[in-house]
Amino acid sequence: MKTLIILAHPDINHSKVNKRWKEELEKYPNDIIIHELYNEYPDWNIDVERMQQLLEAHNHIILQFPLYWYSYPPLLKKWFDDVFTYGWAYGTKGTKLKDKKFGIALSIGDKKDNYLPTGSVSFTVDEVITPFKASVKHVGANVLPYFAFFGSSFQASDEEIDQSAKDYINYIFAFK
Amino acid sequence: MKTLIILAHPDINHSKVNKRWKEELEKYPNDIIIHELYNEYPDWNIDVERMQQLLEAHNHIILQFPLYWYSYPPLLKKWFDDVFTYGWAYGTKGTKLKDKKFGIALSIGDKKDNYLPTGSVSFTVDEVITPFKASVKHVGANVLPYFAFFGSSFQASDEEIDQSAKDYINYIFAFK
Repeated sequence: MKTLIILAHPDINHSKVNKRWKEELEKYPNDIIIHELYNEYPDWNIDVERMQQLLEAHNHIILQFPLYWYSYPPLLKKWFDDVFTYGWAYGTKGTKLKDKKFGIALSIGDKKDNYLPTGSVSFTVDEVITPFKASVKHVGANVLPYFAFFGSSFQASDEEIDQSAKDYINYIFAFK
Repeated sequence: MKTLIILAHPDINHSKVNKRWKEELEKYPNDIIIHELYNEYPDWNIDVERMQQLLEAHNHIILQFPLYWYSYPPLLKKWFDDVFTYGWAYGTKGTKLKDKKFGIALSIGDKKDNYLPTGSVSFTVDEVITPFKASVKHVGANVLPYFAFFGSSFQASDEEIDQSAKDYINYIFAFK
């Protein structure tokens, strides 16, 4: 069964990290399927039934996005609100996401050292992604460790980004 | 100077708590100004310049919204991404929000006891709102304690909601 990547970048063509990661993902068409929210739903109207079918057909799901203001891009937040419905994702009969594995792949502008209690952000990435962890837990699924690339606002080198793309693939296969 | 309420409810007319809170806020037109994101920007195109002027004109700002999936409504997340620009909100010259006070007023569907390490959510509200706290801190502003009403999905009584509306007003004036 393939890994489903929910890719949410508001402007992928002008991104460096997420665009590079997408190119790497596309090298594994037998193992990975990519669903790009901003391309699929440019009018912000998410096809909930189609989305739920896609989720039902996969057990390993990665949300890939740039971390802006310590949170999801807005369309990815709308995806949770629209797709994770009562009676499907939660509630007595809402068991469709139960026991699936959810990971998160983040490009982060700031430097790694700033995501420490002593750093300028003063919160860790694990603290920042609490809404993701609580949501996955609420639907009875499993939260995987996060994958992150730091410093994307500080002119990361092409070599560093290339390496992160390979690390990202390894992360996906390690938890498949 | 008035308190600016940024109200973000995707369907305020069908809400119980946020609608009641709004009615209470409207009793204080000399002290409180309400800016409703979903009414003002139905096409999701936020008027950034207007929004920045509004923020510059107020020092006490409350974000009011229902907590869905432990996070912002999507248009409120877009508000952060669009309005908190480099050179205005952050960066060397981006000091327009510095020293302002930001609060958060949440209606929460689940019960209070579930927002404990031992509860079904397993995270506290303070942990869930880390993205808000990190964002306010990043722009050099002050994070106020949060205000919350719990159990709105469990048929909260009209009396409880009435009381919460009065408590909300007290919260606003206490930190003004």
